[in-house]
Amino acid sequence: MKPKIQKHINLIHAIHEQRNHFNPTTAAKSLVKLFDYDPGLFFSNLGKLNHQHLGEVLLELPREPLEVAIERLTPHRLARAAEAIESDEATDLLQRIREHHPNLAEKILSLMSAADRREVVELSKYTDDQAGAYMEREFLAARPQDSVVDVKHLIRRFRQHEASSPIIKLFVTDDEGRLVGSVHFTDLLLFEDDTTIETVLEKTGHKRPLTIRPVSPIAEVVRLFEEYDLNIIAVVNKSGKLIGRIVYDDIYDMIRQMETEQVYGLAGVDDEAEEGPFRQAAVQRLSWLLFNLAAILIASAVIDQFDQTIASYVALAALLPVIAALGGNAGMQALTVTVRRLALGEIEYSNAKNALRREAKIVLFNGTAIAAVAGLVVYVWFGDPMLSFIVVAAIFLNLLVAGVAGTLIPLGLHRVGIDPAVASSIFLTTTTDIFGFFIFLLLAEMFLL
Amino acid sequence: MKPKIQKHINLIHAIHEQRNHFNPTTAAKSLVKLFDYDPGLFFSNLGKLNHQHLGEVLLELPREPLEVAIERLTPHRLARAAEAIESDEATDLLQRIREHHPNLAEKILSLMSAADRREVVELSKYTDDQAGAYMEREFLAARPQDSVVDVKHLIRRFRQHEASSPIIKLFVTDDEGRLVGSVHFTDLLLFEDDTTIETVLEKTGHKRPLTIRPVSPIAEVVRLFEEYDLNIIAVVNKSGKLIGRIVYDDIYDMIRQMETEQVYGLAGVDDEAEEGPFRQAAVQRLSWLLFNLAAILIASAVIDQFDQTIASYVALAALLPVIAALGGNAGMQALTVTVRRLALGEIEYSNAKNALRREAKIVLFNGTAIAAVAGLVVYVWFGDPMLSFIVVAAIFLNLLVAGVAGTLIPLGLHRVGIDPAVASSIFLTTTTDIFGFFIFLLLAEMFLL
Repeated sequence: MKPKIQKHINLIHAIHEQRNHFNPTTAAKSLVKLFDYDPGLFFSNLGKLNHQHLGEVLLELPREPLEVAIERLTPHRLARAAEAIESDEATDLLQRIREHHPNLAEKILSLMSAADRREVVELSKYTDDQAGAYMEREFLAARPQDSVVDVKHLIRRFRQHEASSPIIKLFVTDDEGRLVGSVHFTDLLLFEDDTTIETVLEKTGHKRPLTIRPVSPIAEVVRLFEEYDLNIIAVVNKSGKLIGRIVYDDIYDMIRQMETEQVYGLAGVDDEAEEGPFRQAAVQRLSWLLFNLAAILIASAVIDQFDQTIASYVALAALLPVIAALGGNAGMQALTVTVRRLALGEIEYSNAKNALRREAKIVLFNGTAIAAVAGLVVYVWFGDPMLSFIVVAAIFLNLLVAGVAGTLIPLGLHRVGIDPAVASSIFLTTTTDIFGFFIFLLLAEMFLL
Repeated sequence: MKPKIQKHINLIHAIHEQRNHFNPTTAAKSLVKLFDYDPGLFFSNLGKLNHQHLGEVLLELPREPLEVAIERLTPHRLARAAEAIESDEATDLLQRIREHHPNLAEKILSLMSAADRREVVELSKYTDDQAGAYMEREFLAARPQDSVVDVKHLIRRFRQHEASSPIIKLFVTDDEGRLVGSVHFTDLLLFEDDTTIETVLEKTGHKRPLTIRPVSPIAEVVRLFEEYDLNIIAVVNKSGKLIGRIVYDDIYDMIRQMETEQVYGLAGVDDEAEEGPFRQAAVQRLSWLLFNLAAILIASAVIDQFDQTIASYVALAALLPVIAALGGNAGMQALTVTVRRLALGEIEYSNAKNALRREAKIVLFNGTAIAAVAGLVVYVWFGDPMLSFIVVAAIFLNLLVAGVAGTLIPLGLHRVGIDPAVASSIFLTTTTDIFGFFIFLLLAEMFLL
């Protein structure tokens, strides 16, 4: 056996014997290596994990090894694994199983304890972009009349039942379960056993904690965490009843996911389609290519209008891509900066004047510089001062259009509620291609022939 | 006065009277609105903030209002503000002041308390991409022989001196200050006042905490937080002495910053240059445009080689942008997915076979589809079956090249240690432009004339 494979087996053994920090990502990576080498070896090592580790690793496995795992593990074992992880993770896991094996998912759900099953069913109601989908139902809550010693009992019990859940804050709820406050454990440590939580809240200069509703957009929740440096937020229902919490580690994941959507959007790729089978990804990407084909054909039609000009001066054909490429590149620079600043909340439509002025200055500066360089190269290449002048003028004007369009298109789309990351670039390149070809060939027709 | 402006003034008053949660981002935004309306109003409201809020707001202000603020505030007030915020924030603030007013920064530093000054000087040693630059020097540490009641005293003292620092974990250090363990406060709550920390560590099944060195790359630290779902990590020096900590809220910022770098890199923009004055941003963007000009001129030279072919069949000129655009777009889709998966650690050069196979399948599927559609449009447009066939063949072949290059270029660059986000796209479009124009015009020369 290859020494590399042995290394991965050793890692799983170390986890099994609790000799090191458990990291589901690393464990899943090692198991995937084993899977590529020998699926049997993969399965025997996967089987060694305890319920909780198994559940966490299953969430990190790619599609293929996950299929093998869920087909070979018993529904009973899968139910134990789902119970051992946090409720939002269990919901994710069952969702992944449901995609291809709806009956198995139901079977697993029926084998779970009533309490855990209820939590998963509750969480399954929310869509991907709602806060509820990322909420853990496990949390520690005391009533105002409870004493510090009562809270100590609660902690002991919570630790027994929910060993994997971090305890970050103590929530305080009234008799109807409505959230009335929250306490840091460091503060709690400073009070005597018989002090009531109500007194603790008063003495620590308590403020009403920030809360969100389960139907709130997850993007708003992420914004709250970032702006207020939160590590936990309480989720409450319409009547103010505490129903769950969202914790910092989900925020790391959510930021990454929002960023993936933005990067993919700029290139005409959809993150959900990319995670699906190849055909789903291909069809989504194809739709983008078809839009681009339609857009570029308009630009082609513009060129075709000048066919006589090109026939009499063929060098123009060789220079068309230069005009298009520089306009497209300069425009994408302005567009990316604008899309980014919109996403980070640094600019909005209403206060975009400064941004537009800055982009205009940059593009004036760069338009002058790059047009001059291109004009020089064209003069050396073709030795025609008039052609060189036309290149300079067309590039300069196209860069101005590119800079302004690259700023205004995302601002305008954002203003009317369309995601600028997804739709901006196609409008931009269509604008710069059509304008660039038109102005270049028009000038050529006027001055060259 | 406009009602909108009054709203922003009210917000600052509410902060001053501590009537709401303080959010430096929101406060800074309101102050910027006041600045745009009337710099005097901006300054009078800024002046109302207490030391800590002032320090935090200064960090969030854009360049222009910051300049006004630091010129008008006394060095004494700025020193108090720097002392009131966390040491890593104070270091950032002094760094921002130092850029334009090096003497003022030194003056402020000299007015700070000896302890705070030492911390800032210490932190200033680290570069932007090192963990040390994001480290807070404030932390709570006890010795193993301390009792729970000793820790309670420590908490009270920490709260007095460092009101703004969150306490997340209790670090345990030996007499030389070396980190030997860490304890959750919820665990501490379960022990009697006279229990020693050593006993607490034993009874809670303590494992050695993860640590990092201040010279470690910050990207690695972010990876640790994400993979192990951390909310805090201890920073230790060469001999294991605890010197600081990095906390979850810096990780939110760092993820955003790393993502900004990646998105900007793909478009030839540099995030640091964009934060500088317009000329710095313009020059950086210009260098990217010059690279692109050089690349596209090679493609132009390819076209120029076929000038006779184009002169005899001018429709070719109109179709050149179609070949280039589709190759470029399909390639950027493959490239973006690959760059993203590399960044998220989902693929590496060594296990890229599956990724390459998938991209090849997608591009075969989409190349066939889009080439067929484009061929049909060209047939309807020009009525020439041979031209239509050439378009189909050139687009199909160029998409294959685009898919393979879009996958291999970032993998290869990553392999040799070059950031694929920054350099990939220029190599890709150069490849697809040159190959696309060459194959299209070669086929035209062979079959059309």
